[in-house]
Amino acid sequence: MTAPRTIGIGILGLGTVGQGVWKHLTEKKADLEARLGVRIDLRGASVRNLRKRRAVRIPSSRLTSDPHAIVDDPKVHVVCELIGGTTRARELTLRALRLGKVVVSANKALLCEHGPEIFRAVRRHGGQFLFEASVAGGIPIIKAIREGLVANRFELIVGILNGTCNHILTRMGEDGLSFADALKEAQELGFAEADPTLDVDGIDAWHKASILAWLAHGKWAPRNRTLVEGIRKIGPADIDFARRFGFALKHLAVVRRDFRQNWMTVGVYPALVPNRDILARVSGVNNGITLKGDVVGATTLAGRGAGGDATASAVIGDIVDAIAALTGAAPQGLSAEALAAREKSGRALRMADEEEIVAPFYLRLSLLDQAGVSEGVYRVFSRHKVSIARVIQYEHPNQGRGTVTLSTYPVNERRMAAVVRGLKGLRTVLEEPVVLRIFSPES
Amino acid sequence: MTAPRTIGIGILGLGTVGQGVWKHLTEKKADLEARLGVRIDLRGASVRNLRKRRAVRIPSSRLTSDPHAIVDDPKVHVVCELIGGTTRARELTLRALRLGKVVVSANKALLCEHGPEIFRAVRRHGGQFLFEASVAGGIPIIKAIREGLVANRFELIVGILNGTCNHILTRMGEDGLSFADALKEAQELGFAEADPTLDVDGIDAWHKASILAWLAHGKWAPRNRTLVEGIRKIGPADIDFARRFGFALKHLAVVRRDFRQNWMTVGVYPALVPNRDILARVSGVNNGITLKGDVVGATTLAGRGAGGDATASAVIGDIVDAIAALTGAAPQGLSAEALAAREKSGRALRMADEEEIVAPFYLRLSLLDQAGVSEGVYRVFSRHKVSIARVIQYEHPNQGRGTVTLSTYPVNERRMAAVVRGLKGLRTVLEEPVVLRIFSPES
Repeated sequence: MTAPRTIGIGILGLGTVGQGVWKHLTEKKADLEARLGVRIDLRGASVRNLRKRRAVRIPSSRLTSDPHAIVDDPKVHVVCELIGGTTRARELTLRALRLGKVVVSANKALLCEHGPEIFRAVRRHGGQFLFEASVAGGIPIIKAIREGLVANRFELIVGILNGTCNHILTRMGEDGLSFADALKEAQELGFAEADPTLDVDGIDAWHKASILAWLAHGKWAPRNRTLVEGIRKIGPADIDFARRFGFALKHLAVVRRDFRQNWMTVGVYPALVPNRDILARVSGVNNGITLKGDVVGATTLAGRGAGGDATASAVIGDIVDAIAALTGAAPQGLSAEALAAREKSGRALRMADEEEIVAPFYLRLSLLDQAGVSEGVYRVFSRHKVSIARVIQYEHPNQGRGTVTLSTYPVNERRMAAVVRGLKGLRTVLEEPVVLRIFSPES
Repeated sequence: MTAPRTIGIGILGLGTVGQGVWKHLTEKKADLEARLGVRIDLRGASVRNLRKRRAVRIPSSRLTSDPHAIVDDPKVHVVCELIGGTTRARELTLRALRLGKVVVSANKALLCEHGPEIFRAVRRHGGQFLFEASVAGGIPIIKAIREGLVANRFELIVGILNGTCNHILTRMGEDGLSFADALKEAQELGFAEADPTLDVDGIDAWHKASILAWLAHGKWAPRNRTLVEGIRKIGPADIDFARRFGFALKHLAVVRRDFRQNWMTVGVYPALVPNRDILARVSGVNNGITLKGDVVGATTLAGRGAGGDATASAVIGDIVDAIAALTGAAPQGLSAEALAAREKSGRALRMADEEEIVAPFYLRLSLLDQAGVSEGVYRVFSRHKVSIARVIQYEHPNQGRGTVTLSTYPVNERRMAAVVRGLKGLRTVLEEPVVLRIFSPES
């Protein structure tokens, strides 16, 4: 087969994930085409209800109520199965694979229940089945296991794989809510379904854990040999014990492998995690996974484990991999054209000016210990319209000097430099001020 | 060119990383060959001193003191440049690229200082230059930016990229050491060089930050337009302020991009990070990076940022990518043969028995409030030889009952099940005991 230079994409199902894929793939199309050196043709999507109003505007000519029209379209090379469930989804996935196509899927239940059948079809007909989006939303965990960390065998994979449980446990543990109230809140915020069983009883996390176990170890864990527990039983005394002894309560999926004895375990259950562990800091609806590899040691990936956009990010990642494989495009988008395009866009980019870089600041000042000193210092800040958030003043009376540490509200670099120059001009400021930035990726 | 079925690998330099690559590639060779459907030929390594004793045993017939013998060997398709520096390394890298070969590199200084020249050679001669190992050791951050999160534009990349600085700041912040003592300790532990300048003054982190900025945005940040600060100035008052107001002191590399104004900033400096941020939990010699993508939101990767084995993991990941590209092997190792091999090894794998699964446990018991109750409970534990670590007892005298929460030392599932059965058999245990596992990925 000669490598096609136009790749057709078809989408089955336009829920939040399907709409996210359509939207972001359309927005990034030109960039991805330049990077891959191919044309991307977003051919259409199948939906149940053609008339339904959707947040993402899609021309009606691109919509069909017949998923076979998408799957069978000879110009569609990559089929994104985003309808969910295991009946229709299974039939359509197998149909696409039998046509030798690539199927990109976010469907964890389908993979868990019909994995062997799906991969038999892949083997027989030369297609591909890609499923980054099926576990941990936008976190590229499948790719990390399969590619980036390919040198490793994994003795342990442990993850927070259900955002609903994690949100509930975070609210219970950090804010003292009861399970019932935290669940109700999660439902109101759209983080939990009206029937929360799949999430709070551990079924969703169990699906994801089995996929990770199969991926790392090649075996589908039988349901009756694995522990699947939810979080309904967690109560205030458990939260209290955890807090007193430095633990966070987390709903974990744990896959252990013993390479000498050649066994594995898969379990999904609430557990106490020491606060020092990075997973204890994965809070709210986020997911996080720690992989313990024999070469690399413990590596953790964390981020948004669900939601239309995060999951769309994973689907698009798989689509791009599929395109590279189908067209023989340079791996990692490093074709000569892609490099030239990068250089060109790099040339148009400028470095920010000092006014454009903004952060809250921290300062440490060494001050002469005499009346009126603080006032002079604060006058410098107010002259440059910089507001102070917090102050600690330390006195060292025997040394005739004091230390002041303080933080500011956000201010740009140029203004802060002016403040520092002003402070250095004061006779009462004894040493070079220490200036640090306060930084939060969340801000 | 027809796809070769045997891929020759050559290594330049056998320091800790080079030895790690040789060792792990040799150990995993059969597995990788099955996965990729090709033969891997580890042809040889060049060293400065042929007589030097090394931790990894390599037949002397595979060693040469002439790196050109490796680079020019027509059977070597992939050259791993692990000698470091920018003179010899540059010459050898360009020589290999001009022969159209793949160069896998851990050399951040080389890429920073000669990136444009290197990629010009890639473009002109059709080779590849792969550099996962140059940033953040074993953490697959380059692949995440380039592939897994390819749907995203990154408005923010913020990372702890220097393990030496992070170890020093962790010891100062958590254990009260002075900068001098923490540095001395890091040197004794082998985490810092005798001359620590490159690390503690921020040069190493700056190299890595520029690579990430270039990768994400296509522009090499000029050194004179970026802020590069080290950690020498951090003192006890700074640590005190941070602790009181809920911050951790971290040495950060920050790459910001404003897509509307089309600017970027690159900065490397110590900063206060709120404890709630996951980066505040990246401690010791670990590295961690948060990527804020427009589609996926904030995604964090953390793990070992340096060391021979972790870096070797990244080098081998790149080698496998190179092999897949050179041979047209199925992406992600999903060839029909690879799938069959996985299935076979999966069939040989068994699920663990209950005695093989071990953890410390937590229990919550609801007890009748009368004399001698606790004694009966503890007798059940000691009968099964399960040691108790911590206990909290709550009395609810008006209800005629109390609650006991406790944790155990590690015990296997079968023994714990026996304890729970024993407890349930007591007349004084009023409800189904709540049983949770205590889990630490670090343990």
